[in-house]
Formats: sequence, C-alpha cells, structure tokens
Amino acid sequence: MIDQIYDVIIVGAGHAGCEAAAAAANLGSKTLLITMNMQNIGQMSCNPAMGGIAKGQIVREIDAMGGYSGIVADKSAIQFKMLNLSKGPAMWSPRTQNDRMLFAAEWRYILEQTPNLDFFQDMVKSLIIENNKIAGVITSLGIKIKSKAVVLTNGTFLNGLIHVGDKQLGGGRMGEPKAFGLTEQLQSLGFQAGRMKTGTPARIDGRSLDYSQMEEQKGDEKPQKFSYLDTPKLKEQKSCYITYTNESVHEILRSGFDKSPMFNGTIQSIGPRYCPSIEDKINRFKERDRHQLFVEPEGWNTIEIYVNGFSSSLPEDVQVQAMRHIPGFKNVKVFRPGYAIEYDYFPPTQLKHTLETKLIDNLFFAGQINGTTGYEEAAGQGLIAGINAHHKVHDKEEFTLNRDEAYIGVLIDDLITKGTEEPYRMFTSRAEYRLLLRQDNADIRLTEKSYNLGLASAERLRKVELKMEKSKEVEDFLKATPLKPEILNPILEENSSSLVNQSFRASQILTRPNINIRKLSIIEEINHKITHYTEEEVEQAEINIKYKGYINKEQENVAKLHRLENILIPGHFDYMKITSLSAEAKQKLSALKPKTIAQAGRISGVSPADINILLIFLGR
Amino acid sequence: MIDQIYDVIIVGAGHAGCEAAAAAANLGSKTLLITMNMQNIGQMSCNPAMGGIAKGQIVREIDAMGGYSGIVADKSAIQFKMLNLSKGPAMWSPRTQNDRMLFAAEWRYILEQTPNLDFFQDMVKSLIIENNKIAGVITSLGIKIKSKAVVLTNGTFLNGLIHVGDKQLGGGRMGEPKAFGLTEQLQSLGFQAGRMKTGTPARIDGRSLDYSQMEEQKGDEKPQKFSYLDTPKLKEQKSCYITYTNESVHEILRSGFDKSPMFNGTIQSIGPRYCPSIEDKINRFKERDRHQLFVEPEGWNTIEIYVNGFSSSLPEDVQVQAMRHIPGFKNVKVFRPGYAIEYDYFPPTQLKHTLETKLIDNLFFAGQINGTTGYEEAAGQGLIAGINAHHKVHDKEEFTLNRDEAYIGVLIDDLITKGTEEPYRMFTSRAEYRLLLRQDNADIRLTEKSYNLGLASAERLRKVELKMEKSKEVEDFLKATPLKPEILNPILEENSSSLVNQSFRASQILTRPNINIRKLSIIEEINHKITHYTEEEVEQAEINIKYKGYINKEQENVAKLHRLENILIPGHFDYMKITSLSAEAKQKLSALKPKTIAQAGRISGVSPADINILLIFLGR
Repeated sequence: MIDQIYDVIIVGAGHAGCEAAAAAANLGSKTLLITMNMQNIGQMSCNPAMGGIAKGQIVREIDAMGGYSGIVADKSAIQFKMLNLSKGPAMWSPRTQNDRMLFAAEWRYILEQTPNLDFFQDMVKSLIIENNKIAGVITSLGIKIKSKAVVLTNGTFLNGLIHVGDKQLGGGRMGEPKAFGLTEQLQSLGFQAGRMKTGTPARIDGRSLDYSQMEEQKGDEKPQKFSYLDTPKLKEQKSCYITYTNESVHEILRSGFDKSPMFNGTIQSIGPRYCPSIEDKINRFKERDRHQLFVEPEGWNTIEIYVNGFSSSLPEDVQVQAMRHIPGFKNVKVFRPGYAIEYDYFPPTQLKHTLETKLIDNLFFAGQINGTTGYEEAAGQGLIAGINAHHKVHDKEEFTLNRDEAYIGVLIDDLITKGTEEPYRMFTSRAEYRLLLRQDNADIRLTEKSYNLGLASAERLRKVELKMEKSKEVEDFLKATPLKPEILNPILEENSSSLVNQSFRASQILTRPNINIRKLSIIEEINHKITHYTEEEVEQAEINIKYKGYINKEQENVAKLHRLENILIPGHFDYMKITSLSAEAKQKLSALKPKTIAQAGRISGVSPADINILLIFLGR
Repeated sequence: MIDQIYDVIIVGAGHAGCEAAAAAANLGSKTLLITMNMQNIGQMSCNPAMGGIAKGQIVREIDAMGGYSGIVADKSAIQFKMLNLSKGPAMWSPRTQNDRMLFAAEWRYILEQTPNLDFFQDMVKSLIIENNKIAGVITSLGIKIKSKAVVLTNGTFLNGLIHVGDKQLGGGRMGEPKAFGLTEQLQSLGFQAGRMKTGTPARIDGRSLDYSQMEEQKGDEKPQKFSYLDTPKLKEQKSCYITYTNESVHEILRSGFDKSPMFNGTIQSIGPRYCPSIEDKINRFKERDRHQLFVEPEGWNTIEIYVNGFSSSLPEDVQVQAMRHIPGFKNVKVFRPGYAIEYDYFPPTQLKHTLETKLIDNLFFAGQINGTTGYEEAAGQGLIAGINAHHKVHDKEEFTLNRDEAYIGVLIDDLITKGTEEPYRMFTSRAEYRLLLRQDNADIRLTEKSYNLGLASAERLRKVELKMEKSKEVEDFLKATPLKPEILNPILEENSSSLVNQSFRASQILTRPNINIRKLSIIEEINHKITHYTEEEVEQAEINIKYKGYINKEQENVAKLHRLENILIPGHFDYMKITSLSAEAKQKLSALKPKTIAQAGRISGVSPADINILLIFLGR
C-alpha cells in the first residue's frame, strides 16, 4: 500500500512525536508520522499548561533550536506567568495556561504545513528488524511500511490500563484504545521493559463552581511568551483560581483508601513523585491539614475545568463526595472522574545519548516510553531523537547537548546514565550549571548550533545575533557611564543601599542586590539610552553585569568538566578486570558503558575514588 | 457519584444526540449528555458536508424549529451551493462543505452554553428499567445515573466492527472503541435487533494531488445559508474538485473482490443503497465505464481531503493502487484507507411517532440506531426525540410532525410505519407533498409550532412573521400592478415567450415558464418596489404566485388525508377477527398497530381494499 521507503517513521503524535516528526522532516528526511487517530494529534493529555519551573526553560530551548512547542504554546495561550521572578534569573520560568483544543489544532496545522512530512492513521503493532537494524513497521491493519529509522513515542498507550477505584479499563487515555504488541516484541529482542503509573484529575463543569470562595490568580500584567520568534503576546488573559482541600475532604478521601488501586496493591508501578495524587499527598504528608488546588480553565470558551492538584484513582463517588467539601465546589458537576493509568516503559539506560537504542540500530525512543513525565521533557527528547534519526540515516555525526548547554542535555544524560525508577521530571536542581541554563539565553546557547545543523532558520540566527550585539551595546554603555553621587544617592537611599561619595559606573551600582536597571532608569541619561533597546536586550545586559561573578565561576567549572569529558573510555573497556574498583562501580560501568570519564562520574554508585582509579588506568 | 435524578439522559453526542440534548434542555428538562469522549462531540464521521437534496430541507426544518444543525453548519461552512436551482423550488436544496474541526467545535461551544445541560464522559453499558419504564443508565465504570427518560443515539458504535479487506477491528469509528452491552440487554427485553453496514472512503493528503487534472467546482457566487437567524454568509469559499474513475481503476478494484467483505460473505448486513461503495458501483453498474468523484477539502487550513464517491472496504493496497489511476491521483498519499463498519440497529417499527419505544416507557431512539443514514436524518430524529422525552416526563402531549408539514414528519412516519431493511436516506420523492415542503418555507411551516412548544425563540417567530408580512406585500403589489404591452413585449421576446397586446398584471406574467421576477425587475416600477425587500421576501412572493395552482392542489390532497388521519383506530383493535382482510394486512396491522386509517394506508402490504374494509368496520 505504501511503497515508499521513508527515512524516518515516528510512532505517536504527542509532544515527543510532533517535535521528532517536525525536526526530521525539516532537516530533509522523508518522514512519516503514524498516529492511532489523526484527530488527536498534539493532545495535552493532562493539564492544559506548558512550561513552569525548569520546564519553561526546556520549552525555550526547544524554541531556540527551531522546534515548535513554544510557538504552539504561545498561539494557544490563555494566560502567561513568569514564575520565580523574585529569585535570580536562573530560576525565572515561563509558564502558560493553554486552550486545549487550540493547542492541538496549532500543532496539526504546523505539521501539515511541513514539507517532507507524511501522515498515516493506524496503530503500529510491530517493528521490522533486519540484522539488528530497523527496517520499518507493521500496523494493526497488517500494512508494512519501510523506513531507515523509527522513533517510538508511545506515551501511555503501550498496554495502557486505566484504574478508577477497583475498576479497570484498557486504554491509552480515557475514551481511547490502548496499543499493544510492541512491548512483547521488544522484550523478545532483549529489551528490559517496566511499568510506570501516572494519573490525572477529574474534569469538571465550571458553571457548577462558586468562584467567590476562591482566590483569583491573574496572569502577568505584562505577559511575555515562549518563542524567540514574533509570536504575539497576549492582550487578554483568563484567570485561574486557587482553593484548598481541608480535613473533611481528606476524611472522605481516606474512606476510599481500601478501594484505592494505589494502596491495595492493584497498582505496583511507581508514579510521578512530584505530581502525586491527592490520596498520595494526604497519605504521605499526614501533618498537613490542607493542600492547594489550582482551578484551571481548559480554554477561551469552554466551561471545562481542570482541577490541578486533585489527581486521583480513588472510586469516582469518593472523588466527587470529597470535592463537594472544597470551598467553591459544593455543587460541583463532574465531566469525568480522575484516573490512574499504568503503561509500559523501557528503562532509558538502554539508550545512547542520541536516544538511539543500544540493541537495535536506527531505533530511537522519546518521551514517556523512556520513563519521563511532562510534555516539555517529552518534546525535548522528541527533538533530539528526530535530529539524530535524520543524522543516522544520512551518515551525519551524532548531535547531543551537554549538561552545561541545555536542560535537554541534563535530561538525556540523566536518563541514559542513571536510568529512572519513577517518572522523571526536570527540576532546576538537576542542572549543575543552572546559572548558565537560563530561559533568557536559550537562544544564545542553542540557536547557532541548530542553525549549523540546518534546523533553526536564518531568521532565528539573525534575531539572536542582533540581540547579542544590542545587549553588548547596552552592557558597554553601562560599563562606560559614570554616575555622580548626587544622582545616585537618592536612588540608593530609597532602596536601602549604602550611599556613595564618589562617582561609580552604572555597571558597578547594578551589582548591588537591591538595585536593578528599572530603578536606575529614572536617571535621564540611562533612560534615554535604554529606550532604544528591547526589554530582552536590556535584560540580557543587566544579567550579564549583575551575575558576572557567578557566571564566570560556573564557566570555569564547565571547563574542568570538559577536560574530563575529553577523556574517552574505549568502547570495550573491561571494568571487571580492575580489581580496585568497587563491586557496584564495576557492575554499573559494565552495564552502562559510559563514553567519557565525566559521564562515568555521573553514574550513581560510581564514587570519586572509582574515577581516580579509572583515570590511572587510562594513563592520566 | 451523581445523585441528581435527571429528566432526560441522552446517550451519544453525534448529530442526533446533540440535537436531542439541546432540545430537551432548552425546553427546560434537566438533561445529561453522556459521550464516550467529550473531545468527539459533534463529529462528522463521514463526509465534511451538510444538506443536499432533501437533506438540506431537513436542516432548514431543524433550524426553523430552533435546533442547531443549521447554525453549526453555517458557522463552519467553507462552501455553499444551492442544488437543483434549474428545477422548481421544491427541489432547491442547500448544501455546505464544512470544516470538520470547526463543526465539532461549534457544536461543543453551543451545547456548553446551554442551560440545564450537563455532560458526562463514559460508555453507557446498560439501562435501568423498573416496571417496563426507564429509570436511568449504568456506565462502564459502573456508575448509576437516574433519569425519567433516556434517548439512545448510539450511531455506529453498538458492537461496531470495522472491515478493511479481510481484516476486522472492533470500533465505533476508526481509532475509537466500540460500545457494547446495550444491544444484548435490549434483546433480552424483547427488542428485535439487526445489523447494518455503512462505509467511508479513504482520507488523503491534498498535497499529493494534481488539481490541474480535475474540474474545479466553486461555491455559489451569491452563497446563501441554512439558518433563518443572522448567521453570516460566506465571503470566501473553498473549491471542491471533480474527477472520475476509469476502466483501469475498476480493473484494479475488481482484483480485490475476492477479499472484499461485501462480496465474499463476511459482511451480511445491508449498506446504504444510495451511498454505495465504489466496488458496489462497479459491480452493480457494469455498463458504466466511469464514476464521478468529488474531491472535498476537510477544512479551511487542513491538507486532509475526503474522496466523496470512493467509499470502500477493499484491501487497503487495492484501494491505493486503484486510486493512483484516477486523474490527478497519480502520486496520492493516503492518511487512512476507506473502511466498512457493521453495527447494531433496532428496526424502527418498534417505535411510536414520538420515537419512544413501544416496549419500554420513556425510552427513545434516534439516529442510526433506527436504521437511518445521514447526519440530517439523525439530527431531525434527535430533535423530535428530545422534544418528546421532555414532554413525556412533564406530562405534556406528544409532539409529532405530519407528512405534509415536514420532511422530518415523512422520515419518522416512514420509519415507524414501514420500517427499513437498509440504511434509510431521505429523498424528495419520499414526500407526497414535496411542493409544500420547501427549503424556503420551513420557517413558515414550523417556527410558530415550535415557538408554541417553547423551543423556537421569539426572535425566530418575529422574523418569520415579518417575512410573511413583507412577502405578502410584494405578492399584493405584483397582483395589483398592470404592465403595458410596450413594456412587457421586449422582455417576453427576449425570453421566447409569446407577446401580448393588452396590459397584464405582473403576477399573471410571472406564471409563464420562462419569466421570473429577476427578469421583470428591469421594469423600473417593479425594480423600485422590490429593492425595499429582502431576497427571501421577494422569492417567497414569487413562489406563491408562480406555483399557486400546484400548491393549492397539494393542499387539497392534504385536506383529504387529514380526514382519514382523523379516523382513529382503537389501540386494541383486533384485525385477526376481520376475515375479509388479506392475510398480509392482518399480520402487518396487528404488528404495527397504526393509530389512524391514514397511517394504516401507508403500511406496505396494506391495500386500498383493506382500507375500505377497515373503514366499514369503523362505522364509516
């Protein structure tokens, strides 16, 4: 039926699959995206939001690379917030609430406009493998489609099992069939597979809520956005609302614990630690008498509401009875209860940094199939898998990002080096060099790299070059502009900063904790200059000046790491022969086969002493 | 979980379910719409179009009644055509191409704004019945929801079985799970169930087509619309394209006949006669060397294309190989193959005119579950079932439409009186009084009735009263305006109509075949008058004048029918005792229990002689 041999087939059209398909196709691979239902491309399966702490940085990185998650999120946004603005810029994290239907529509529109990208609706049931190398896929209709590479992004669909109380339904999402066949085949090929669990809260009728009993949470007054391109900023925004559980809610929920698949042993697999169900929260944090809930609209026009923080797989009647005791929820009407879903994943230590599997050439995995959670984590992996699938079939070199270059680099290095026993979520704390990995400089970090690959457009490169040039001008100006005490002191006094009795350059004053460029801009000379620059350019200059010391230190640490990174470990290095290594290190190193000393050092269970021994054996 | 007792529960959110839910809720019933997937509300499962011959009239009737199919179709239209404009006004049939995603989004938006209407996402697995009366439903999660009435609109989902060549998949639509449980329960309650079959063509990639080899089919230059309310008329339109099969296409298709589930006995159920698969067409019409295909865009922006006329359940490779020989399709890329689907239906002779089942009180059926095909037929039934479900639980009288009042009346009367062995589709030929049942006068026929029910809004009534008043003014003017020979004859000559030698009133001249109001409007006096009226008002006056004779005759026939309609047959009339009735008549009449002599006369197998015998026994 399909006689063309594709370069790359992407299986699944969620966040990972969409980014993978777009990247491979935009790089020039003849690409086929296979999904079980073309009307479900680009679904937000859980909360209607993108970004947030560390995740917002990933979306910015994807955008800087020429991926689409940021553009899609901007175009479907209904609210924007820059989180953590009170902290340092490394913690600033953009986040949008999104219109769920628009988000999916935007993704589909973008993919349909992508040259080289074809679509097919069917379920992939097995892979065609020849000599340990991928050769294509076979669908549930028995259709064989040949390809040189395959990226699996199956999300929660592989043997998906939905739990509500003691009831179980097969399905990849509520109301959608599960996928089957692939896990069993991959296991027969030698892959380790496991089960993970995730969950989602009830969807409810916004008309049944009393918002007067909740706190309104508005978007930022000056909303920003994800994309470095010219996506529009929001002019109007929709509010979220905050409410809380209480002891009565908890008591009712506890009454269902004996029927909870999480507590009665029905679900053995591990769920996302940092996105626990409400029953998990009241069970683990018994001392807390309330938990915060975010009441999030699902779109511009819909009455559907997502109850963020109330994920549950308790029996549906327990969920509803408990909700009725939440302030504002007395008359709540439920569209569907929350549920848990168990699905197959493949421990990601079976992958290379390119997200290619070690066992089967040209087979890549991205997203929840690798044990991650989160749209952003999935999209980031999809982008890297898509790029490398293209590179592999075109005999180009591997493309990877280091831990000092991107959260995406941290994510993938963590996954393939350490593996994960529970759904992996990104945090700023996972990045050693998080002061370098900011949301404001993802373009500076990544766009040129991606442009050189042929992925980021010339427009993106021009924009980032202009931003760098302009912010340098501002920086130079601030470094060269002396400010007299009589001008400075009123500002310093107002901001409780010690006064000066001689002139200081603007850049020197800017390093003070309570002072920022906005405050200095009441000085006419400074104001006059910066009005000629965009907010982003001025902000970049300010960050460079204000955090110079920290940034320099982190860059030195990176340089050290790179020296270790350069020390390669031969592919067939026999750790077992080095008796002085710890038993655990021998086992982990043999299993994971790190490529470099630096990577070896990041394996949990490999100590600095083990690293020193390795360095000696490698002649250093 | 849901402790409220609903007045009406609607099962299924397709065209029938959406109209039923809106009608019941708008009339004031506490209504619950249950759907397997809230993201699939208002799907166009097959072609992205509404209306057409006889069907367009139904959409206008639904709109006149205060239903939403016309509004949704107008708001999501990408092309409008008034079909059959070269024929008389009884044949004029509005039709839109629609944006599939927008259509569903508009339906969902409207339903969400409807007071009294709640939503729940789950599959209904069984009905709660107490003393032969409906009391609620039980879902796949085991949730019991109580209600006073239930409307089943399960479409193709009940035990849905999808066929592609010799492969079979369970499902209600491709990529969506089937529903099960209800048929078996209904059968155990004494319902007869059967299987029907329908099919859908492949969806393809518009980028792979060569439109230069097809004929462009543009929308009307002056597009009209369905709704009598102020929905916007299209300013831009998208074109369809026409192409044809040929002998090579047929030859390839025939090569798959041995694997066709239609021909090898796998599918026993009967499909829609007037919407046959392409293999049916080349099999049944062996003399035809080509069949017309309409290449229809699926929306404003999408590249997806619907190949109208190429429905097929042949093996997918045969479908694709054959398509490649269609002009313009040489490089066709397929998103998914066509398929056939078998599903359960319940012969509609088990229903009353209200669409309530005879066996279970307060249980209503609407749509494909009654053996019909077509969005419009489904929507029309949904409207009537929704109204009557509301009326039943509020002890109001039955609401039905007669055969001389609406196509919807013809549809339901045909269904419950004659039943159907194959998917029932509406045609103008099914209506005895089709000159009365025009698309231009659905508002005049139905809006006041519906307003009296409390369904059509006061705005609708005001609009139709204004239209009637204004068109009467035009009519009176035309009847009162004499036109002199020197003014008339140039127009008559130009239109090959015999000349006059005395004055005639405009209305008299209008009855001539080649003359219409547009042609007369070059006369200043007429032009001056009609510019003060809308096109619809002028058109209404013209139709009333031009077709007065025919219309009067049909109205006389209707009066005759009504006399028979008034002769009621007692509910427990024992036909078996009347030995002079034919055996077939006895059996059919006993089974169908017609309420009136007129209804008895429409039963196939009941002859005029049988009717005369009945009249004698009823004392006439």
